[in-house]
Amino acid sequence: MQVKQCFVSAPGKSILHGEHAVVHGKVALAVSLNLRTYLRLLSTTSGEVTINLPNIDTFLTWDVTELQPLLSDLTGEDDSVDNDLDLNLVKKLREFTGIAEGSTDTRSMAVLAFLYIYLSVFSDLLPSLSVCVWSELPTVCVSLQLCFQPENKSPPLTPSSSSKNTARLELINKWFPRGEDISTGTRSGVDNAVGSGVRLVPTLRILLSNTKVPRSTKVLVSGVKDKINKYPSIITPVLESVDAVSKTCEQTLAEMATDGTSAKHYSILEDLIDINQHHLNVMGVGHPSLDTLCRVTLAHGLHSKLTGAGGGGCGITLLRPETEPSVVRAAVQELKEAGFDCWETSLGGPGVLMHSPNSIPQNTLSILNSY
Amino acid sequence: MQVKQCFVSAPGKSILHGEHAVVHGKVALAVSLNLRTYLRLLSTTSGEVTINLPNIDTFLTWDVTELQPLLSDLTGEDDSVDNDLDLNLVKKLREFTGIAEGSTDTRSMAVLAFLYIYLSVFSDLLPSLSVCVWSELPTVCVSLQLCFQPENKSPPLTPSSSSKNTARLELINKWFPRGEDISTGTRSGVDNAVGSGVRLVPTLRILLSNTKVPRSTKVLVSGVKDKINKYPSIITPVLESVDAVSKTCEQTLAEMATDGTSAKHYSILEDLIDINQHHLNVMGVGHPSLDTLCRVTLAHGLHSKLTGAGGGGCGITLLRPETEPSVVRAAVQELKEAGFDCWETSLGGPGVLMHSPNSIPQNTLSILNSY
Repeated sequence: MQVKQCFVSAPGKSILHGEHAVVHGKVALAVSLNLRTYLRLLSTTSGEVTINLPNIDTFLTWDVTELQPLLSDLTGEDDSVDNDLDLNLVKKLREFTGIAEGSTDTRSMAVLAFLYIYLSVFSDLLPSLSVCVWSELPTVCVSLQLCFQPENKSPPLTPSSSSKNTARLELINKWFPRGEDISTGTRSGVDNAVGSGVRLVPTLRILLSNTKVPRSTKVLVSGVKDKINKYPSIITPVLESVDAVSKTCEQTLAEMATDGTSAKHYSILEDLIDINQHHLNVMGVGHPSLDTLCRVTLAHGLHSKLTGAGGGGCGITLLRPETEPSVVRAAVQELKEAGFDCWETSLGGPGVLMHSPNSIPQNTLSILNSY
Repeated sequence: MQVKQCFVSAPGKSILHGEHAVVHGKVALAVSLNLRTYLRLLSTTSGEVTINLPNIDTFLTWDVTELQPLLSDLTGEDDSVDNDLDLNLVKKLREFTGIAEGSTDTRSMAVLAFLYIYLSVFSDLLPSLSVCVWSELPTVCVSLQLCFQPENKSPPLTPSSSSKNTARLELINKWFPRGEDISTGTRSGVDNAVGSGVRLVPTLRILLSNTKVPRSTKVLVSGVKDKINKYPSIITPVLESVDAVSKTCEQTLAEMATDGTSAKHYSILEDLIDINQHHLNVMGVGHPSLDTLCRVTLAHGLHSKLTGAGGGGCGITLLRPETEPSVVRAAVQELKEAGFDCWETSLGGPGVLMHSPNSIPQNTLSILNSY
């Protein structure tokens, strides 16, 4: 019997090292973050496409017939996914949705990314479906999960076999950057590698802090570019150093995953966090709020760096296995007083998972099923 | 008529960029600091050598005949000054003065440096003399001024002609590192270039802050070495970047000195200060007190970095020509509340000067003459 709905979850991602440097051809190290985003995909016969994003109060429905004319611009060639973003389709979608050129707020981006991928994946015949996404993270990521549908142009019937899963992971790697291209104006090559969760890393306790300082990734990325152009002899070696930080970290994590963790390993991870945070400041993507994060946590013996674009946004703080809960509580208390949101979570958890309903946290399942 | 005394002053030095990197073969940029150290050298017939260092309450006298036996260890070869520090003589001097191996406090270092250079310079027949040094800086520098005496083995008779001055400047460059070798365990090659004041730089307003956090240059230098050994692929590019910072700054200063200063120049100088401060943090020679300096001054739109060994010690803050006195006052007030001492002064002033008594500030002259 054909199952009419499926549940998928994907880990958040945290860039441990190499954010920004990756844009300039350097290695970046991104690992899964155990704050997951859940998706329910429901095959319907309504003739409508519905997207429900309760995290950002976005609930939209289109008639499939409205969307069909937008397909005329697609080449339909299968290998087109390896090419650059189809800017013509993005333009058409902005016109169709009424989202102004230059609008890069989360809602606009989510809607554009959803429609872009929906149209690209189902390029022959558009199916009726209802999608609901709920994230434990304060951001949503709708593009990844949609990538599960390109083969048979219909929702998957049962949780996949492992060979089917492999094929799907490849598809994620092929498609996932699309969602990001639209919002950052550049493709980092980081996000898909994380989403598929292929990297072997030990589980690392961390604190994720949201400084709540808003920033534009696009502006920050272009600021780094400007700095490289202004001071090439100064910034180029810094990117090389960041590259070496990522590689040293990767090697250390591999050792930890293979041989078990030791205080020596953690000491190296802490050194690398400190070094890279300084490098990110050199690139101009630091922020006083991130300095506060580093200062407050260091006063408790903990090491922090920004993660992602910087200029505010989120930071991660490494916790050692032996770090006392009272130390974490004290640090969190001070960070909250500084106006930040904090989550104690971990890095290195599972990648994309197919779920049966009973393997989903009850409150998450309730939310997904209520739309 | 032979003048029995002479007055000399030397500027302080401030390392603008390249501290630590210079130890590893990179360029450093040091400029004169307009807080001067004055020396009175008095030729006597007492058969004694007296050193008066009122800044550090050090007043010592030796019979020349006591010192004479120490000369037996000197080679007497003129080119010996190009060789490394004579560790055997340092050992003998520690025994003679009773300064324990490993004592590196300012008084011990000043006494050792004075005697080392006195014996090395007057290597045939030791003259009777009385030296008084008074500094506007909270440190003393006795070694530089003594270097004025090696030619005729007697105090200079009159303020020198310019050709004589040139010869003396060369001698300073030859001898000055000696005083530093003893205390840092390494020769940076920076200090003599500054002392001679040959570099053409514009006058730059600065704030010099003493965090009053004590540190050992030797320990800091060796910490950087350890870090390079532990993370060669990460730290080597950082040293390259610091090298480029020094060179970019040197070029910018030359442009400012030649073409006049502009806001664009100051903006570059500020960028370089910020970048290098982050690099120094990467090398592990930062300190929370220096972070405070940077944070407090930046809140007033001013950019700071450590100067010298780091790990506490002193920092400099660049002031623009148009920086309002009220802004400086507000910053100084907050820095004093953080426990720092501050001096508003300038970089790029004159190098070593010979003085007639009436070209010396009256209160300084009184101090020099009172010993």
